Amino acid sequence: MAALSNSEIDEYLAFAHRLADAAAPITLGHFRTKIDVHNKLEAGFDPVTLADKGAESAISALIESTYPQHGVHGEEHGKRASANGLTWVIDPIDGTRSFITGSPLWGTLIALSDETGPIIGMLDQPFIGERFFGVLSGTRRESFYVRDDRKTPLKTRSCTGLAEASLSTTTIEMFDTPNKARALNALQGEIRLMRYGGDCYQYAQVAMGFLDLVVEAGLKPYDIHALIPIIEGAGGIVTMWDGSPAIEGGNVIAAGDARAHQAALKAMQSSLG
Amino acid sequence: MAALSNSEIDEYLAFAHRLADAAAPITLGHFRTKIDVHNKLEAGFDPVTLADKGAESAISALIESTYPQHGVHGEEHGKRASANGLTWVIDPIDGTRSFITGSPLWGTLIALSDETGPIIGMLDQPFIGERFFGVLSGTRRESFYVRDDRKTPLKTRSCTGLAEASLSTTTIEMFDTPNKARALNALQGEIRLMRYGGDCYQYAQVAMGFLDLVVEAGLKPYDIHALIPIIEGAGGIVTMWDGSPAIEGGNVIAAGDARAHQAALKAMQSSLG
Repeated sequence: MAALSNSEIDEYLAFAHRLADAAAPITLGHFRTKIDVHNKLEAGFDPVTLADKGAESAISALIESTYPQHGVHGEEHGKRASANGLTWVIDPIDGTRSFITGSPLWGTLIALSDETGPIIGMLDQPFIGERFFGVLSGTRRESFYVRDDRKTPLKTRSCTGLAEASLSTTTIEMFDTPNKARALNALQGEIRLMRYGGDCYQYAQVAMGFLDLVVEAGLKPYDIHALIPIIEGAGGIVTMWDGSPAIEGGNVIAAGDARAHQAALKAMQSSLG
Repeated sequence: MAALSNSEIDEYLAFAHRLADAAAPITLGHFRTKIDVHNKLEAGFDPVTLADKGAESAISALIESTYPQHGVHGEEHGKRASANGLTWVIDPIDGTRSFITGSPLWGTLIALSDETGPIIGMLDQPFIGERFFGVLSGTRRESFYVRDDRKTPLKTRSCTGLAEASLSTTTIEMFDTPNKARALNALQGEIRLMRYGGDCYQYAQVAMGFLDLVVEAGLKPYDIHALIPIIEGAGGIVTMWDGSPAIEGGNVIAAGDARAHQAALKAMQSSLG
């Protein structure tokens, strides 16, 4: 499809804010309440909350009524095909395990994507009251943070290599094959500081310039689409571990500086022989 | 020393709020700024921020001018002896690694302790705007949460054993000996859900009733004193891994339910043969 005009992008970005505004009271209404948690998969623990389902329904309904030609790809309700090449890729609660354990490090992820990847990305954290969002379209690359109605640009920090890098990942349980564990170990042996936990919030920390690398495995498309414009609009880069585009999810690496990104790819590839 | 009266406790609790209020602008003034980070230990990475030092100085000065007989035991400035048996045990920024990586899961820890342990404990999270505090004195056991001037009592949740337990720890790097790693592995094999990250915030999640267990190693007294009244005032229990009192720091376990606590102690002790 043809590139969106700036006014189209501004319109859809404003709409993304409306979607986040619509989801927030639903997610917050269930946060830190004693909710029913259903196991989505019988094998393993994959909690889905009423908040997840309710927020996605609200977002999906608003998209359908406002932009009926647009597709929707969500965690809870699957895909609705796009008639014009534009699809909203959403995860109403990224970090459901944070959510159910009372940690505020979860977020509502909203992306507008075409077949080449995300154009607009937003991470809303309504409990803390923070919103991160970015745009990637042609030469327009920008990323912002809003809290208390103050909007500030996001900028990743310089990081020339692994020796000065702070790295985060949600949990070592993601690295559930010998090759994945080897790749993480290769990085851990060279970096300066390792952090755990955080889900989508870690990517916001990269965009703000306080983390250098996030390495994760087994992500879904809706786990990463919204985060790509936020990080790349702030000067960073998001790819698969082999350097290819990350828009299908899978094994993802996000970096604030392309030099640290290259060094990390090299270390991980070396670990695999 | 004799037990404090209720009016003395109320007075010191109000003063703890003043200490947290004094520390907050200093910590917030440095949060998410590009600060100088000094390595406290040449071997290893133990960041100390200007915020840490500034907040502890402010707290310490306020204690000295208000209660000159009280002792102070802080992370940054060491100990000032108590003339009356009461000592303020403080960690101005627990979770310095969260702080320097832009995560809001750090807190200011303030305890008032006598030789038997903490009487008042407070965890302030000024960025999110949350305050958790508890009292343990004779039969007075209480714990509260305040946000937006709304005060609500804290209550841990029921957890009868490891099979239904959600467990959190800040980082596996804490478990830096074979015995410590075995103890953690023994728990991980039996629990329902494992979480990483969080520092002091994890203990607040136990007090709120959204986590069941926190297991950590190598803590300092000022890492745990403030958290004991918050958890025990909410119905939980904090001990060493062998069940002894945790007031000297070290290898600590916090639980929301004494049954899960017993089951965890047993599993860890079995792992050590």
